Amino acid sequence: MSFEFNKIPKIEGINALHGKYDENKIPKKDTRIMCERQYQHNKIMPSLERAIEYSGLKSGMTISFHHHFRNGDNVINPVMDTIARMGIKDLVIAASSLNEVHAPLIQHIKNGVVRRIETSGMRGDLAKAVSHGLMDVPVVFRSHGGRAAAIETGELHIDVAFLGAPSCDPFGNANGYNRDCEEGKACGSLGYAKLDALHADTTIIVTDTIVSYPNTPFGIPESHVEYIVQVDSIGDPAGIMSGATRYTKNPKELLIAKAAADVIEHSGYFNDDFSMQMGSGGASLATARYLREKMLEKNYKARFALGGITGQIVEMYEEGLVKKILDVQSFDLIAANSLKNNRFHHQIDASYYASYQNAGAAVNQLDFCILSALEIDTDFNVNVMTGSDGVVRGAIGGHPDAAAGASMTVVVSPLLRGRIPCICDRVNTIVIPGRTIDVVVTDQGLAVNPNRPELREKLLAARIPVLTIEQLRDKAYAIAGKPEPIKYKDNIVGLLMYRDNTVIDVIREVND
Amino acid sequence: MSFEFNKIPKIEGINALHGKYDENKIPKKDTRIMCERQYQHNKIMPSLERAIEYSGLKSGMTISFHHHFRNGDNVINPVMDTIARMGIKDLVIAASSLNEVHAPLIQHIKNGVVRRIETSGMRGDLAKAVSHGLMDVPVVFRSHGGRAAAIETGELHIDVAFLGAPSCDPFGNANGYNRDCEEGKACGSLGYAKLDALHADTTIIVTDTIVSYPNTPFGIPESHVEYIVQVDSIGDPAGIMSGATRYTKNPKELLIAKAAADVIEHSGYFNDDFSMQMGSGGASLATARYLREKMLEKNYKARFALGGITGQIVEMYEEGLVKKILDVQSFDLIAANSLKNNRFHHQIDASYYASYQNAGAAVNQLDFCILSALEIDTDFNVNVMTGSDGVVRGAIGGHPDAAAGASMTVVVSPLLRGRIPCICDRVNTIVIPGRTIDVVVTDQGLAVNPNRPELREKLLAARIPVLTIEQLRDKAYAIAGKPEPIKYKDNIVGLLMYRDNTVIDVIREVND
Repeated sequence: MSFEFNKIPKIEGINALHGKYDENKIPKKDTRIMCERQYQHNKIMPSLERAIEYSGLKSGMTISFHHHFRNGDNVINPVMDTIARMGIKDLVIAASSLNEVHAPLIQHIKNGVVRRIETSGMRGDLAKAVSHGLMDVPVVFRSHGGRAAAIETGELHIDVAFLGAPSCDPFGNANGYNRDCEEGKACGSLGYAKLDALHADTTIIVTDTIVSYPNTPFGIPESHVEYIVQVDSIGDPAGIMSGATRYTKNPKELLIAKAAADVIEHSGYFNDDFSMQMGSGGASLATARYLREKMLEKNYKARFALGGITGQIVEMYEEGLVKKILDVQSFDLIAANSLKNNRFHHQIDASYYASYQNAGAAVNQLDFCILSALEIDTDFNVNVMTGSDGVVRGAIGGHPDAAAGASMTVVVSPLLRGRIPCICDRVNTIVIPGRTIDVVVTDQGLAVNPNRPELREKLLAARIPVLTIEQLRDKAYAIAGKPEPIKYKDNIVGLLMYRDNTVIDVIREVND
Repeated sequence: MSFEFNKIPKIEGINALHGKYDENKIPKKDTRIMCERQYQHNKIMPSLERAIEYSGLKSGMTISFHHHFRNGDNVINPVMDTIARMGIKDLVIAASSLNEVHAPLIQHIKNGVVRRIETSGMRGDLAKAVSHGLMDVPVVFRSHGGRAAAIETGELHIDVAFLGAPSCDPFGNANGYNRDCEEGKACGSLGYAKLDALHADTTIIVTDTIVSYPNTPFGIPESHVEYIVQVDSIGDPAGIMSGATRYTKNPKELLIAKAAADVIEHSGYFNDDFSMQMGSGGASLATARYLREKMLEKNYKARFALGGITGQIVEMYEEGLVKKILDVQSFDLIAANSLKNNRFHHQIDASYYASYQNAGAAVNQLDFCILSALEIDTDFNVNVMTGSDGVVRGAIGGHPDAAAGASMTVVVSPLLRGRIPCICDRVNTIVIPGRTIDVVVTDQGLAVNPNRPELREKLLAARIPVLTIEQLRDKAYAIAGKPEPIKYKDNIVGLLMYRDNTVIDVIREVND
């Protein structure tokens, strides 16, 4: 190196950032064989506590979690307990969603460890407590696409992401299944976690299964991972994922499904190479089954199926009826194993799935989607968040994203649940705006949004009876009476963000 | 929506960023069927010019290109011609590498369209002109890993990336091959382009083949792509990629290869589940072939093969001898097709491959790598950049990254090329520091770096004759004489950045 560093002409952005090569500053190369090196030099921290320490987590920061382990999750609670023990307080939890199993968060909220929460949904005791005024700051509920957009624009900045994974190699290549053995826990797609890992300042993978390098194909690449913690168990396999999503035998659901499949068939959106998103509810799954028969009959194939993926979709893929699967979240073990084994069952992240920031978001390519609902009102607004008692018991999910993106959005719902009308004058909580809902299918008739007259004409031409939404409401009220309005206090406990992160509704403290 | 926006309690980072949901501001949903929608609403721009206009490219900015199309590339020249016509000047070109075909850049440099260049390498007339003082600002040469790190840290900020792709759907899912038809151009991995797409402010995909959505599995996801331009031809298939990397019959190369394979066998790094990176030079390829025989003999398998991937590695994968392939760049059509068809042939980006910012970078997991060289000196420093006349004619590539990461780095080279000694007192240009080179294998003997005495002992124990590097130099000088030093002017025309982006050497203007 026969040059004087100082005589190198100045180049903007280049000079002196790293200086002259200095052999003494270059780490000595690690000459052990690979397996020794991976054993001794890796990103694995001896404990959660140590990983948290290294991550630089401080009071006031924002941490994130994913909900791919659903109600089997054993990541959030131990992480929060450890954080509490370490004396870190005043945190923002930005989870992709929360579940019944996360009731212990109540204590951390009371003790000041958690200042506020962002999530897609909430259930169980935590949701009840929040609805009864547990928190000083309202919970911010975002759709999956809205959360992705908030992360991408920096509105939601994640300081430390704690991401559970069913397998991870010593350098952070993480997967939603384990390729080294056929047993073991699986959650399939890590779609929500992928985006967190990409954008978080620090990503910690929490796993119970370290596999050898390289854990490819990966859900999360090592280049987005800083630390790894091995724990005894990331969760309860039964809660993470059951064998197959159950096929309904409920006659009401079958009736709804048959009607929904007929709507699709005659809507103009059922063509060769169509695209779809089907939910995981009983009626949605049954709709897929009826649709399958129509596809076989007409020799139609779906170009892709999107969204939360079920065994039902996988079956159609393996039959050759669905060409590609875009999977942001696997709903059952069949789906998780298909992601592992089927080449065109592809894992996508939340931004790719549904961010409004992304012109090509996959939801925008949907010909139709099927969504289930708790309530639908006469403006076609949909509630999937609060129950008939006004208490939080659901999740926004990707509903508003798929509804806005799909050419036709079909909402399936029984007319009544027990003595509660599902079609009403005004939903308790607006989660999906009515203008994005095109058809409402119940077991006692269906209605088409008046802003889609051409769709109504098509169904009528196929001799499908179409009611008005008011007629559906009247039928429901005739059976069960008009429900009393829920009594709320003024206190706002939750903000419902639409997918563009404007506030579409608020949730108030229940008064009982 | 029965709430007053102004009465929502203030939440830091949330309030009023996007305001209250306003139905009138939500775009009307697109109710066409998918194929119509993709045809009419997409990211495809009518021309390169329009895409450049929309990208906001202005004089003084930084643009990037990849070199996956090697000497068949027809992206850089048309893009630069268009930019020149549009009157944009004073640009920084940050290409992952440049080739002979890019000689037209000379005019753009002379005309002030290009202010300075960053690249891994340069060849042909452009390289000659640069070596003769074409540019006012030295060219910054970075290794693939160093470039990745510079992008990640923001040292190299890409305003607009122009990334050629053999297939792309209307929303930007881009691939290095075309899954819709068996013919068509292919470059395999888009490893260098992937990182540019992720970090560039604006990414423009340049393709000649639009395929239907979704082009999964993708090399570059739609969520990282802003615009697409369809051109007549992205390049010459013969130049992009030949059928298979040729197997050498050169007796000198076979001799070197046999010796290199023997070194590996007895180095202590040849075990079941080993990992390797093999180059694409004749001797490297032949080494892989000899190694294959030893693997069959001992029933060893490689856990993974990394790097630029050749048909030779694919053959071993398909035989079951290599379990996984991590591919940052495909060297031939066999490799490109394997990426398309083989599930554990996985595409990785440049950061994952080699960034020193990334503790788990795949190069750090290498048991051994084979590199070829133009010159090696008695300090084991390696030159892969300048020829015996001092003129630029090569590329850093991933050499310094693999050399630093691998437990054992073997450099293969003939003792002489024609009448030019390849082992010498001092290389013209230091590209790889000697401390990261462990063994030098020539057709007339091999030497082990004195900082690896244990490796020397192992080879001697296996009755492999080990010379000193000085003995190799003396042999070369005895045949061809000590070469005259090259005459340079003072003017610095290139900076050689080590992988941590410190300056390891400079290239001066040749004096002839």
